[in-house]
Amino acid sequence: MDDRVRQHAEVLVDWSARVDEGDRVVVDVAEGAHDLAVAVAEKLGERGATLLATYGSDEVTRAFLRGHDGEFAGNDPALAMLEAADVHLRLGGGRNTTATADVPAERRRAAKKADQRVREARMDTDWVGTVHPTRSLAQQAGMAYEEYRAFVYDAVLRDWESLADEMANVKDVLDGGSEVRIEAERTDLTMSIEGRTAVNSAASVAYDSHNLPSGEVFTAPHATEGEVFFDVPMTIDATRVRNVWLEFEGGEVVDFAAEQGEDAVAGVLDTDEGARRLGELGVGMNRGIDRFTDSILFDEKMGDTVHLAVGRAYDSCLPEGESGNDSAVHVDMIADVSEDSRLLVDGEVIQRNGTFRWEDGFDG
Amino acid sequence: MDDRVRQHAEVLVDWSARVDEGDRVVVDVAEGAHDLAVAVAEKLGERGATLLATYGSDEVTRAFLRGHDGEFAGNDPALAMLEAADVHLRLGGGRNTTATADVPAERRRAAKKADQRVREARMDTDWVGTVHPTRSLAQQAGMAYEEYRAFVYDAVLRDWESLADEMANVKDVLDGGSEVRIEAERTDLTMSIEGRTAVNSAASVAYDSHNLPSGEVFTAPHATEGEVFFDVPMTIDATRVRNVWLEFEGGEVVDFAAEQGEDAVAGVLDTDEGARRLGELGVGMNRGIDRFTDSILFDEKMGDTVHLAVGRAYDSCLPEGESGNDSAVHVDMIADVSEDSRLLVDGEVIQRNGTFRWEDGFDG
Repeated sequence: MDDRVRQHAEVLVDWSARVDEGDRVVVDVAEGAHDLAVAVAEKLGERGATLLATYGSDEVTRAFLRGHDGEFAGNDPALAMLEAADVHLRLGGGRNTTATADVPAERRRAAKKADQRVREARMDTDWVGTVHPTRSLAQQAGMAYEEYRAFVYDAVLRDWESLADEMANVKDVLDGGSEVRIEAERTDLTMSIEGRTAVNSAASVAYDSHNLPSGEVFTAPHATEGEVFFDVPMTIDATRVRNVWLEFEGGEVVDFAAEQGEDAVAGVLDTDEGARRLGELGVGMNRGIDRFTDSILFDEKMGDTVHLAVGRAYDSCLPEGESGNDSAVHVDMIADVSEDSRLLVDGEVIQRNGTFRWEDGFDG
Repeated sequence: MDDRVRQHAEVLVDWSARVDEGDRVVVDVAEGAHDLAVAVAEKLGERGATLLATYGSDEVTRAFLRGHDGEFAGNDPALAMLEAADVHLRLGGGRNTTATADVPAERRRAAKKADQRVREARMDTDWVGTVHPTRSLAQQAGMAYEEYRAFVYDAVLRDWESLADEMANVKDVLDGGSEVRIEAERTDLTMSIEGRTAVNSAASVAYDSHNLPSGEVFTAPHATEGEVFFDVPMTIDATRVRNVWLEFEGGEVVDFAAEQGEDAVAGVLDTDEGARRLGELGVGMNRGIDRFTDSILFDEKMGDTVHLAVGRAYDSCLPEGESGNDSAVHVDMIADVSEDSRLLVDGEVIQRNGTFRWEDGFDG
C-alpha cells in the first residue's frame, strides 16, 4: 500500500476524528475507497475502537431509487446505527461521479428528505468526510491519475496546527463583526453575522470542522440582501452547473439564473423553505489546494475564494441551544475572489483581490 | 448485467426473504458482490423496502483485527442496526477466500465471541445468506469462472417448491423418530432427536431456511455417542481442513483428529463449552449441486451427503421457548454417504448408499 494512504488514514483517525479507545465508529466506504478503508480499519483497530463499515455505493443507490416508487420511509436501521455511534467517517471516492445521473431529480430529492433524521443523527456524532483519490475523481478534475493523487495528498497531508493559526485571524474578525459585504463581478451582497460564531475549520472535530481536507473559516449568515455571482463550476445532483446568479431580498432568494444546469439549481431551491435562505458563508484559505477540481470538498477550501451555501446551517455557528436555517439540503456555491473583489466586515475591508489585511501586498 | 444476476436477486428478495412493502432491510455486501448488490437494491426499491448496505470486506476485517490488541468490545452500532431491521441479507463473494489467513486464530475467535449478540440479533431478523459467484470462489472450487457461474446459478435458480415437496419426506421421518444412527467408513454415531423438529430447508424464511441455495433437511441432535469421519475437505477460519474424525461420549467431543488443519479444528472445539457438542444434523438433498466446491453453502446441500455441525443449534429445531446447544461458533463438517453407508431412524434404514427408502433402487 502507498504510504500516503496510511498517512491519510492516520490524519483522519487521529487529527480529524480524534478516535479514542472504546469509540464506536461507523465508516462509510464508497465504491472506490477500499484501500483507504483498509488503512482506516487498521488504525481503528490500533486505537481500540469498534468498527462497522457501510457500503456507500452510488450504483446501489441508483438501482434502489430507480426501482422505488418515490414514497420513501425513514431508514430505521441507519438511524439506530448512527444513534449508537460516537464517530462517523465517510470515505468518498466513487468510480463514476455521474453514477446517479439517470435517477429523476424529484426522486433523489424525495429520498433526501426522507433521510433527514439520519443525516441529523450523523451530525450528532464526531463526523468527518474525506475522499480517497480515484480515477473517476481525477477525470472530473481533468487530471491524470497520479497527478490527482499528488493533488489530494498535498491538500490532506498538511501541517494542520499551523494552518489553524492563520485561520484564527479571520475567525477573530468575523466573531467581532456584525455585517459582511462582498463586492465582486455581478456581486454586491450584504449579510448579518450578528450573534454568530465563526468556525476555524482546521479539519478536526476539535475545531468543529468535519472535512478532510479543510482550510476555511465559515459562519451562518442571515438577513441576506443583494445579488451574488458564482463563477466556479460545480456539479449538483449529478448535473453540471455553471455561473449561478442569485438575488436575495429579506434573506430569501427571489430570483436566480444559471448559464448551465438552471433546473438543478431550481430543484435545490424548491426542496423546502430553508433551501432559499443561506446556511453558510465560507472563506477558503487552504493555499495547498492550487486549482479547482469540480469537487466541493476541495474547491470551497481553496485560497482566495468565498463560498455561500443555501440550506441547512451548522449548529456550531449558532449560540448554544439555538438553531439556524433548517433545510434538507446544504448546497455550496463558490466565487473566485482573487481579482476585482472586496470582502468587508462592518464597512472595513478585510480582503481585497485575495489578499488579507494582515498580509504583505494588501491594498485596502 | 447478466440476466441470471437479476433472477438471483429476485429469488433472494421474493422467494427467500419474502420482502414486503415497508420492510427495513440491511444488505451486507462482500468485496466481490457489487453486481448482485445492485440487482438486489433494485428489487428492494420495487418492493418499497428500506435499504442500508454494509460492507462485508475481508480485507477491512483483517486490517482491523491485526491492528487490534485483542480485547474486543461489543459493536453497539451493528447491534442497534440489526435490532431495527426486519430482514438481513448477506451477499458473500469475496476476492480472496484466504484474505484473513494471517490474522492469529485466537484473535479471530475473540472477535467472534465479542460479536455474539450481533449474530443473535441478525438471527432475530428474516436473514438469508447467499453468494455472488466470483473468480476467487471459482478458484477455490477448482473451476473456470464461467463454469463456476453456471454451477452457482444451477444451484440457485431452481424450482424451490418442488424440491420442498421432496424434502418433506425426510422431515416427516425425522419428526416422527427419536434416534438417528449413521454408519459409514470410520463412522458409527447415534444421536437423540427426541422432541426436536426438523427444518425443511427450502431456501426461504417461510420454511425457517436461511441459505440460498439450500436443499437440506436439518435438525438439532443431542446425547451424541460414537465416532464420525468427515471425508469432504473444507476451510475453517481460512485454514484447509481434511479428514476430520470426532469421538463423542455423553454428547461431547472427547477425542478428535484431522489429517490436515487439526489446529483449526482444535481452535473451534476450544471456543466455548457448546463448541464440543453438536448443534446440527443435516441431510443434503440438492442434487442440482453436482460437485464439492469447498464452500459450505453449497457442499452441505449436495445430494447424498450428511453433515454435522459443532456449536450453536438453530432455535427453529427446538420446542417454542426452549434453547438448544449454545455457542459462539457453528462449524459444519460433511461426509459423502453415496457409498458404503446407512442412515437409520429408530433402527429403520432410511437411506442407503445415497438412495432414500422411497426412491427407486433402494436396497435396505
